[in-house]
This record gives sequence, C-alpha cells and structure tokens, in this order.
Amino acid sequence: MLTLDKVYHAAFALKDVIRETALIPSPKLSTENNVFLKTENLQVTGSFKVRGAGYMISQLSDEEKARGVIACSAGNHAQGVALASAKYGIKSIICLPDGAPISKVEATKGYGAEVVMVKGVYDDAYKHALELRDKMGYTFVHPFDDDNVIAGQGTVGLEILNEIKELDAVVVPIGGGGLISGIAYVIKHLAPHVKVYGVQAAGAPSMYNSVKDGKKERLASVSTIADGIAVKEPGENTFKLVSEYVDEIVTVTEGEISSAILALIEQHKMIAEGAGAVSVAAVMFNKLPIKNKNVVCVVSGGNIDVTILSRVIERGLLTSGRTCNLCVELMDKPGQLQQVSAIIASLGGNVISVHHERASEKMDINGCYLRIVLETRNYEHIDDITAALTAAGFRLV
Amino acid sequence: MLTLDKVYHAAFALKDVIRETALIPSPKLSTENNVFLKTENLQVTGSFKVRGAGYMISQLSDEEKARGVIACSAGNHAQGVALASAKYGIKSIICLPDGAPISKVEATKGYGAEVVMVKGVYDDAYKHALELRDKMGYTFVHPFDDDNVIAGQGTVGLEILNEIKELDAVVVPIGGGGLISGIAYVIKHLAPHVKVYGVQAAGAPSMYNSVKDGKKERLASVSTIADGIAVKEPGENTFKLVSEYVDEIVTVTEGEISSAILALIEQHKMIAEGAGAVSVAAVMFNKLPIKNKNVVCVVSGGNIDVTILSRVIERGLLTSGRTCNLCVELMDKPGQLQQVSAIIASLGGNVISVHHERASEKMDINGCYLRIVLETRNYEHIDDITAALTAAGFRLV
Repeated sequence: MLTLDKVYHAAFALKDVIRETALIPSPKLSTENNVFLKTENLQVTGSFKVRGAGYMISQLSDEEKARGVIACSAGNHAQGVALASAKYGIKSIICLPDGAPISKVEATKGYGAEVVMVKGVYDDAYKHALELRDKMGYTFVHPFDDDNVIAGQGTVGLEILNEIKELDAVVVPIGGGGLISGIAYVIKHLAPHVKVYGVQAAGAPSMYNSVKDGKKERLASVSTIADGIAVKEPGENTFKLVSEYVDEIVTVTEGEISSAILALIEQHKMIAEGAGAVSVAAVMFNKLPIKNKNVVCVVSGGNIDVTILSRVIERGLLTSGRTCNLCVELMDKPGQLQQVSAIIASLGGNVISVHHERASEKMDINGCYLRIVLETRNYEHIDDITAALTAAGFRLV
Repeated sequence: MLTLDKVYHAAFALKDVIRETALIPSPKLSTENNVFLKTENLQVTGSFKVRGAGYMISQLSDEEKARGVIACSAGNHAQGVALASAKYGIKSIICLPDGAPISKVEATKGYGAEVVMVKGVYDDAYKHALELRDKMGYTFVHPFDDDNVIAGQGTVGLEILNEIKELDAVVVPIGGGGLISGIAYVIKHLAPHVKVYGVQAAGAPSMYNSVKDGKKERLASVSTIADGIAVKEPGENTFKLVSEYVDEIVTVTEGEISSAILALIEQHKMIAEGAGAVSVAAVMFNKLPIKNKNVVCVVSGGNIDVTILSRVIERGLLTSGRTCNLCVELMDKPGQLQQVSAIIASLGGNVISVHHERASEKMDINGCYLRIVLETRNYEHIDDITAALTAAGFRLV
C-alpha cells in the first residue's frame, strides 16, 4: 500500500541515484498564471522514470537483487531501470520489440542493461519479458502500476513542496498514471489546498476517458508525438489513485504540444519531449480553470528523437512566419527567375530552396510554377515580399 | 581595478537579479576527462551577460541611475542590460543596427529596454550610442572591457568553486574576454592550481592571435555560427587579464561547434548557442592538454536562433546517418518509382522527399534521376538500403 512514509523513504533511498531537479520560474509562458517548471527533463536519464524504477529496485531482497530485474520498454522506463540497476550493482534485462528505434536501444545499452530484441510489437516483447521472469526468476519492474514505483515518482511532489511557498496548483502529464499518482498522493496529504491537474494528449486519452466514465477503459489505438504517454490503458492502482486525488484531467492537441516544445526551447533553452511538454501546453493554452495562481508544471522528460525535434522546430518556424513557402506562377521565358530573386533579395528574404515546375494541365502552355522556400522574419515580412511580387505582376498561387 | 573584493560584492549585489546556475555532471561527453557543465545557458536572459551588466548598473550613483544607461548590442549583452535595468528600476536604451534580427529586437524590448534602430552596421549603432550618451548623460555599459562588468562575470568562478571539490580545470568561451577574465582572476587567486583554458571559434580568433603575438590585434573580419563570440578585437583590460591569468587558448571548428550543440541536446536536453558550446567542443574533440581530470566547461549561453538550430540539427542528422540523400538513376518508364519505393519501405526507410529529374545531357535520352531524402537509423541502415537498390539493378549516382 502507498504511504507517505514510503515516499519519504524513497527520497532517502534515491539520494545517490537521482538529481534534485531545479524549479525554474517561467514568467513569460502565461499571462494568466505565475508559472514554474519542475525540470525533470534535466533528471539523469532525461526523465523522472529513474525515481520509481530506482526505489522499486532498491527495495528488493538480496536474493531478488542477485537474480536481477527485467522490464519491457523502448523508452524512459528502460533507461531508468538500466541506470538504477547499474547504480545498485544489479543485472537488468530489457525486452524490446525489434522495430524499436536504434537510438533508444543504444541509449538503454549505454546505461548498462542487457537488451533482448523480441520479434513483433510491444505486446510480444511484454509477453516474452514475463516468460523470462518466470523462467529465470528475474523481478519484473512495472513502468507505473506498482506501489514502490509510484512512491518513487512521489518524490517529485516532495521536492516541489520544498522548492516553492504559496503553491496553488501542480500540473502533471499522464500516461499510465504513475507520476501523477505519486505526486497527487503527496500533495493531497501534505498540502490538500493545492490543486492537482492531469494532462493527456488528445490522441491518447485513456485516463481521461476512464475517469470520466468512472471505470478503467482500454483504447483501441493511440496516436500522438508524445510517445512517452501514449498508453492504451491506466493501471489498477493508478486509476484508483487518480480518481481519488486528482482534481481534473484535460487534454491538449498535437499542435499545442509542438508549440509548448518550441516555447521551452526559445524561452528556457531546454528540450522537452512531447510527453514532458503537455503540462506546459495546458497552461499556455489556458486549459485549466485557474487564474493568477502559482502553478508548477512538471516537465517530465526530454528524450525526444532528434528527427521529431527537427520536425517540431520546422512546424514552429512555419507557424511563426519565420519560414514561408511561396508558389509563383511564371511565364516560361528568360529572366523571370532573376526578377523574382531580385525582389526577394531586396527585401531581405533568404532563399532556402527553389523548385521550377512545368506542365500542369491547369495552366497556360507556356506557364510554369516556381516553388520557393524562404527564411523570413515574421508574417509582416512575408506580406511585404508577397506584396512586392504581386506589384511586379507575378501571380501567387 | 579588479579585486576579489569586487567579485564577492558582485555576488551579493546580484542575488535578486540572477540565478545560481546548476553544475551538471556530463559523464558521456568525453572519455578522457571527467566533465561538468556550468549551465549559464539556463541563466535568466539565457546567458551569463546579465551578471556583468547587472553588477555594473548596481554600482552607479543615484544621479547616474536617474539618467539611465545605454548599450549597443543585438544579443546577450542587450538582454542582460535590459533585464538588470528593469530589476533596478532604471531606464535602458539599446542601440541596434537596423539589420538586426527581429527576434532579438523583440526579446530586448520584452525585457523592458527602449530600442533605437540605427541605419547601418554595428559600428554605426555603436557611434550613435556614444553620441546619445554624450548628449543625454546616459551611462554607457560596455559589453566586456569594464572592471565592474568583469567582476560580475567573475561570480561564475565563485559559484564553480563552491559547486565542485577537487577541480582541476575550467574551460571558458572567449569573445571580448570579459567572462574568462573574471573567472580566471577568481580561480587564480583562490585556487591557483586550477588550470583555466579559453576557447575561441577558429573563424574569430582575435584573443587567440593577440595573446600568441603578445599584442592586441584586430581581425579584418569574423565568420562563425558562434555569433556571441564573433568579436574582432579584445578589450584593453581583458587582453591584459587573459595574458596574465589564462593558461592556454585553443580554437574549434564550425563542425566541432555543431557537434557540441547536438551532443548537449541529445545527452542533456539543453540548448546552447554556438558561443556557449565552444567549451564543450574543445573537451569533446580533445583540444586541451589534460587527461583524467575534473573539468568544468562553462556553457555560457543558449540564445541560438531557431533557424540556425534547425540547420545544426539537420547537419547533425546527416553526419550521424539518420538522414540520407540518395540519387538513383532510372530508365524513364512506368513502375520504376514504385520499385524503388518498395525496396526502401521493405527495409524500414522513411521517405521525406522525392524529386524526379529528367534531361541531363550526361545521361541516356530515356534516363532520369530520382533524388530521395530518407530518414534512416544509422550508416548500416543506409548501406542496407543502397545495397538492396544496387542488387535490384538500380545505379546510384
């Protein structure tokens, strides 16, 4: 059973494993509330997961420790289990589906785990992990639905209460629900006036739906860039704890998550993964029923694939007018490209790519399209450039 | 004159202006040394500059404070002056050349400064700032060559000495030299056995050249993505202090800087600007004459333009085999694109863009080129895909 005592004990047991992450004021993130960021993306392994895994592993008997632990995850949990096991000198085995991104496999190995690639999808890897557990006597480390794991995550709540006075609300990402269960349990026992809000991606609202309907439900599928919280079904324990201690759950869209990631980069020089940024997205886009309050957003992790990060930044540049795609209709005769280039250059636009395209059935037999990608300063700058092109007789399509 | 007393006083005066930034262990950055990061990129305003500007401004007389301060900068110094002035309730004017990026102008305004756009380049803006100083009685805040500014930057050195025992070396980016002057002065007075190394971009080696030649020199031009340290000439004071207290200066290339930025993103979920990452680059690429030492790299700032960040990430993806550009020669007949696509898809490559190109004078009249950009897992993955295409009879060019 989860107790405050267990959480205090976890905080002590984790002292040599984790870092007490900073709470950073974020004055520009919201005009409605006074926001602070609990930076678990700067935690060792880049995520809070090492807390729960670490405490759970620290509580094993000597015999269990001698046999080792096993887990199934391609992400933050795998790295948490691997690092914590290495710190305690225990063998760890991580089962992964064979389609898992190489970068995550390498990271998990890098923290000292033995990786077993299993043919199939996550469920196959999970099944194989349980088989190995039964056969080899390993202890299975659940990613969220375990009292010791939840107690470990609850240490985030203790730290927040130590780091800020006059706290009004805490906003926490929800996947399986381990993190928010631990935090909400701590907050509601030590500072019951503080609100605890959960956030899920709109593309993976398993806890949101379950709590709304008053019973644990399973989603047929999930789809979100916040892969760390793309969980189909809450845990038994976490569903009960969230139902009891969490004030409200809200959801955020993919676009809102992207904007939050970009805001953390620009305003705080920090990388958050999608799952880590949903709390910030909820505050930025005023999803919570609070105003003029001291609000802590838990930024739960930073392990975003660089390819996805690159796409998020590109989308952010487009939506903030700092990149622009133009398509200019030209008559196919000499000098046209030069003219367009000259206009763009004179206004300080920086051409990134040009594509000259002929022969669409919709246009004049002599016409063609010029597709240009530009670096621009903002929307006004884009307007200046399009106005100048139009004034020079070019048609934009 | 710079004194330890001044630096201690600065640390006290800055208590309500700055954040004591965390020192973060970075075990994977180097196999040769034990590296720690002093995270001034997480400082308020995203750079250490607010320390020097803040202390300098705090020491003005009431009369000077009433008149206000002026500075000339498009970057970190401007934001430092603006924020510190706002904290002390002083008016600040920042002169900028009119070509300065809108994002930086907005950021400076956002911290409360009055921005004056000056027609021309940096030198014109600088001249205008001095004119305004003389005419209006503002105090000019120099970006580096002022004892109080240097004393403020020196507080980074005090913090490092408080944050780590058994320190062997500190590695510091050099632009004008204010930061390293302050840190080196503190370190060599309090812990003279600790080495202090400076790092410049190879494209802007003004202090490097000057110290090597034993006299202050001016570069005709500078070129680097590390715009924060693209300084043509050291200061009088900083040149003397660096000559006296810094053990060695090294330079790093643009590629090395990019790799360091990417490593900080992937390993630490932190954004550094080019100038902030040169210290990390020097350690990653073994530019320093030390081994098995406890080394602190000062990551001096994180204000990188998102457009440049995006390019750095793209270059990093290419150089690590996670993006790949293929050019396949096809005969221009139906079904070829389908065949190529099928091979790539079967091997798990993810097509980002395709460009079909005809009519090169070098090829068969029926030939064409297919240019494909792919997301790949690593170089082996790329090799698998190219081998499969070749085996199916396609020629890669």
